[in-house]
Amino acid sequence: MRLASTPDGRVHVVHDDLLVDVTGALGLGVGPQGGLRELLSRGGGHAAHEALAALDLDSLPARSLAGTALGAPVPHPGKVVGAPVNYLDHKVEMGEQRTIAEYGVFLKAPSSVSGPDRPVRLPYRDVPVHQEGELGVVVGTTAWQVPAERALEHVFGYVPLLDVTVRSTEDRSTRKSFPTFTPTGPWVTTADEVGDPGALGLRCWVGDELRQETSTSELVYGVAQLVAYASHVMPLEPGDLIATGTPAGVGPLHDGDRVVLEIDRLGRLEVTVSGAEAVAYADRPGSR
Amino acid sequence: MRLASTPDGRVHVVHDDLLVDVTGALGLGVGPQGGLRELLSRGGGHAAHEALAALDLDSLPARSLAGTALGAPVPHPGKVVGAPVNYLDHKVEMGEQRTIAEYGVFLKAPSSVSGPDRPVRLPYRDVPVHQEGELGVVVGTTAWQVPAERALEHVFGYVPLLDVTVRSTEDRSTRKSFPTFTPTGPWVTTADEVGDPGALGLRCWVGDELRQETSTSELVYGVAQLVAYASHVMPLEPGDLIATGTPAGVGPLHDGDRVVLEIDRLGRLEVTVSGAEAVAYADRPGSR
Repeated sequence: MRLASTPDGRVHVVHDDLLVDVTGALGLGVGPQGGLRELLSRGGGHAAHEALAALDLDSLPARSLAGTALGAPVPHPGKVVGAPVNYLDHKVEMGEQRTIAEYGVFLKAPSSVSGPDRPVRLPYRDVPVHQEGELGVVVGTTAWQVPAERALEHVFGYVPLLDVTVRSTEDRSTRKSFPTFTPTGPWVTTADEVGDPGALGLRCWVGDELRQETSTSELVYGVAQLVAYASHVMPLEPGDLIATGTPAGVGPLHDGDRVVLEIDRLGRLEVTVSGAEAVAYADRPGSR
Repeated sequence: MRLASTPDGRVHVVHDDLLVDVTGALGLGVGPQGGLRELLSRGGGHAAHEALAALDLDSLPARSLAGTALGAPVPHPGKVVGAPVNYLDHKVEMGEQRTIAEYGVFLKAPSSVSGPDRPVRLPYRDVPVHQEGELGVVVGTTAWQVPAERALEHVFGYVPLLDVTVRSTEDRSTRKSFPTFTPTGPWVTTADEVGDPGALGLRCWVGDELRQETSTSELVYGVAQLVAYASHVMPLEPGDLIATGTPAGVGPLHDGDRVVLEIDRLGRLEVTVSGAEAVAYADRPGSR
């Protein structure tokens, strides 16, 4: 099953070439606690899946998928967990001495999450901002100190995710938390339709340039190990997002760029880049 | 005004030696979205202050402050923002080359927040875990790209806060996000009763040892500049917590320790330390 949100926060099942609005049928709100996060919070990923499967989609309001703007499938997650240096080729390109095994996980502000309808906004005009194409994980059921062997039971689904990053001296939480720095979409595909999350091809273009191409089989910490590790540091909650890390090929974004991230079985996330609000780095408040 | 929470999530005004329960009078819930966060979310810090001031405290249920266990004043903030290397004497003791001006801010998991009723739980028995005594800020009103001159208008109040930290190689978000790693309390004191947040004495003991003693006048980024800076990276929301950074004197915690953090005008936070759940670092899931 594929689940999308419109920018107004309503939840839709993607059914062939239609978007079927399930918000009313499931009694979901559309605010920060609403949408897919609310559905998952009610009883976890399995209950959400059952509630969705029980719907008669043909009886619900539908519109054409083509031409409908989509927002983030989970617009207001409780937290966004990231995986630093989780592909060895990215370790090499960054000159890193360490991987996720030494770095653990980092956090992005939940307010950084956006969908295909919003351009990535560059904060600075004179500091590089890079695209990082990644497999995103949507947590279905609370996970606290789960072993890797049980970790995938806590995953509701997967989504293409860009971990947009300023290349400067700040802590990762700063460099990666600006609004629109976590584009996700176009939809969440439930885990049952994805199969092994460690066997997905991932390709990321900026304009016509194919910058990143890998398989999730190359992850240092695969999805199960990453969920298990993170769950030993902090409880993972329904609707939380996990950015699993990026392979080699990160590079600068510029005003007007179009970024496309395609992951096998999950679809194709497309966003534009805007420099309209970029300021000089020296003018950031901290520099005064 | 001083606002405390009991571990069940109910909100109380500290009135002389009494705790006056205002939860029912204000119609507040007690779940993750309830309590002081709910009150602030309704209309910001000023509206919350007015709603509290309008109550007839003598008509509400009260109990003795002495002997009543207190939880975190804001048990479920939307986010916890931290300030790395924000005192120069801490920069020196850590051998750091940079301060917050280069590091920006970091994020802690909201689930790390606890109150005086819960012991700090050490995750590892063979890696140092340090106390970091800090001035905590409770955001009252949404702040997005606010200038320093207007930043304090967005502050609801202040609270003693410990930013407990594992000393290892991981990202700050990992080292500082374990459950019970952000003790706060005993209560939030509203900004009107605190006056200048840049003139508060801060003292932190572990057992009988006075480890940290400073004034918030020594902050590299004072509260107004810190709020302004953070608000240019991510929107600050009602109920968000900001840990403003720690002075020199951090040091290891051990099973059975008692940590006391006292800040002028804000009160005295006391928590114990437990190593009962500590495991060997080599046994963490990532090491397998």
